[in-house]
Amino acid sequence: MKNKVIGVDIGGTNIKIGILTKQGKIIQKTSIPTNPKEGPEKIIKRVCSRIKDLCNERKIKISDIIRIGIGCPGPLDSKRGIIIKTPNLPGWENFHLKKRIESGLKIPAIVNNDANSATYGEYWLGAGKGYSTIVCFTLGTGIGGGIILNGKLFKGIDDTAGHLGHITIIPDGPRCRCGNRGCLEALASAPNLVRKAIEGINSGIKTKLTSLSKGKLQAITSQMIYLSASQGDKFSRELLDETGRYLGIAVAGILNTLNPEIVIFSGGMIEAGELLFKPLRKEAKRRAFPQPAKRVKIVKAKLGNDAGIIGSVGLALRGDNF
Amino acid sequence: MKNKVIGVDIGGTNIKIGILTKQGKIIQKTSIPTNPKEGPEKIIKRVCSRIKDLCNERKIKISDIIRIGIGCPGPLDSKRGIIIKTPNLPGWENFHLKKRIESGLKIPAIVNNDANSATYGEYWLGAGKGYSTIVCFTLGTGIGGGIILNGKLFKGIDDTAGHLGHITIIPDGPRCRCGNRGCLEALASAPNLVRKAIEGINSGIKTKLTSLSKGKLQAITSQMIYLSASQGDKFSRELLDETGRYLGIAVAGILNTLNPEIVIFSGGMIEAGELLFKPLRKEAKRRAFPQPAKRVKIVKAKLGNDAGIIGSVGLALRGDNF
Repeated sequence: MKNKVIGVDIGGTNIKIGILTKQGKIIQKTSIPTNPKEGPEKIIKRVCSRIKDLCNERKIKISDIIRIGIGCPGPLDSKRGIIIKTPNLPGWENFHLKKRIESGLKIPAIVNNDANSATYGEYWLGAGKGYSTIVCFTLGTGIGGGIILNGKLFKGIDDTAGHLGHITIIPDGPRCRCGNRGCLEALASAPNLVRKAIEGINSGIKTKLTSLSKGKLQAITSQMIYLSASQGDKFSRELLDETGRYLGIAVAGILNTLNPEIVIFSGGMIEAGELLFKPLRKEAKRRAFPQPAKRVKIVKAKLGNDAGIIGSVGLALRGDNF
Repeated sequence: MKNKVIGVDIGGTNIKIGILTKQGKIIQKTSIPTNPKEGPEKIIKRVCSRIKDLCNERKIKISDIIRIGIGCPGPLDSKRGIIIKTPNLPGWENFHLKKRIESGLKIPAIVNNDANSATYGEYWLGAGKGYSTIVCFTLGTGIGGGIILNGKLFKGIDDTAGHLGHITIIPDGPRCRCGNRGCLEALASAPNLVRKAIEGINSGIKTKLTSLSKGKLQAITSQMIYLSASQGDKFSRELLDETGRYLGIAVAGILNTLNPEIVIFSGGMIEAGELLFKPLRKEAKRRAFPQPAKRVKIVKAKLGNDAGIIGSVGLALRGDNF
């Protein structure tokens, strides 16, 4: 019966693949290494072959697959399914991802930006279920985002809407990877948190991080900072507090601009929990107008690493790109 | 023939009223003083009576009016046509504007936020004509805004979207009327421009403004600053340059967030022309991602003071609020 959908979430390190029902339930999932050096042709061949295997394992015929939804880093052209370029995947310039997948599997494929796919997943079946106007921040190595307005993914005129990590927070702040100064990403990303921890220790601050990392500063991770903060380490708490405040400034701007029902945070950093969310909410509500501040819920994502494949499937079924 | 529409634009000083065709052409227009102290009941009585007179003057029957579109300062509930409160109009708390106008004139009335109405006017028949994703900044005493996405006014969940003047630009910046620090409005509004000019002169800066204002600092207006800047006055140019840069920072955030086709600036300050727009565009494009920066047009509004009545009529005909 033609009632299954494939979801693919392409990342710089791993590619997640899932077979889902039309309702977004995961029947089978797997993850394969990206090996970016192989280049797009070989990688996509492996993806297609893995999809076929996965279907065989579950005795699902390829002809029973309705569509394939793919989330991929951008910038990309989601209407035509072309990757324009992606910094972490060399050789994907102007790569016709949609066409390659379709010719490999003979199933219609829908390509979307990875952050948009994850946002749609949270909207469809995660923390945003039941809401129609949603802004999602993804807190990873970089900071990305996605926007759902009136129940529809909002992509902007060139598919570049939702780059929430590149809102300027401090005009003369540190240089960002994007070239701008003082972007949210340059102030509040996980690598930035680690960098600040190392700087602090080097300047003589006493913190549990020193013992947790066994004195090897390069071994410090953001997880270690959440842990030491939860154990009461003052310095680690201050770092999370500052990160939360920067995120809160960005959220306040979003509340006054878009007046959403809910703002969702996903990605590794949400493990920091209330030590991050408390200062974040406080700063956002302090700076925004009373009505949008009162209305909005600021919450953690619910789908974890599955958000991408679930959202890709949701968007493929929705078919906004057809 | 039932083919005319009334547009009303309620401001703190004046109320503009127009009779328009369904195509948005102004047949007749007038302006009456608001006299805010009278309170809403009396003011609306005068508005209804002036509308009747205006129709009589043009031999238009009230029964030939399809709808009345009204733009009013908010916050307000556009679905129900209730003004929640507006700082410049005392006594309008929870005022049922829609109901009062409808009972006074027996014509369906549609109420929207004033900045949203003006934005819709520019979208329908002004600088935004032909575009579908538009962000509009209104530069008046305060800084407001409106957002059109995929050809539809975007209001947010509580009608508070588009408060673009209250995006934080400098987290520790000057206190804004809204209570927050470093809002765009607190840094780049016309009164702020005048305040900075006076501060500069008081601190000993030499500028043409001193002679233009005949030494009376309180006589300095923003128009005077545009004039002296256009005459080559260095200090006035610096003031406009700084204002343009602050606006550009806000625009860059909007470009990365919403990826619009066009950003429109309206209000008195656009008289400053390229002396304001050049630094504004430069700052916006420098800070935003290449694609949305390359795509966007940053332009002056075209409808001037008529944007409000034209947009109110457009929104009334569109009937998104029904």
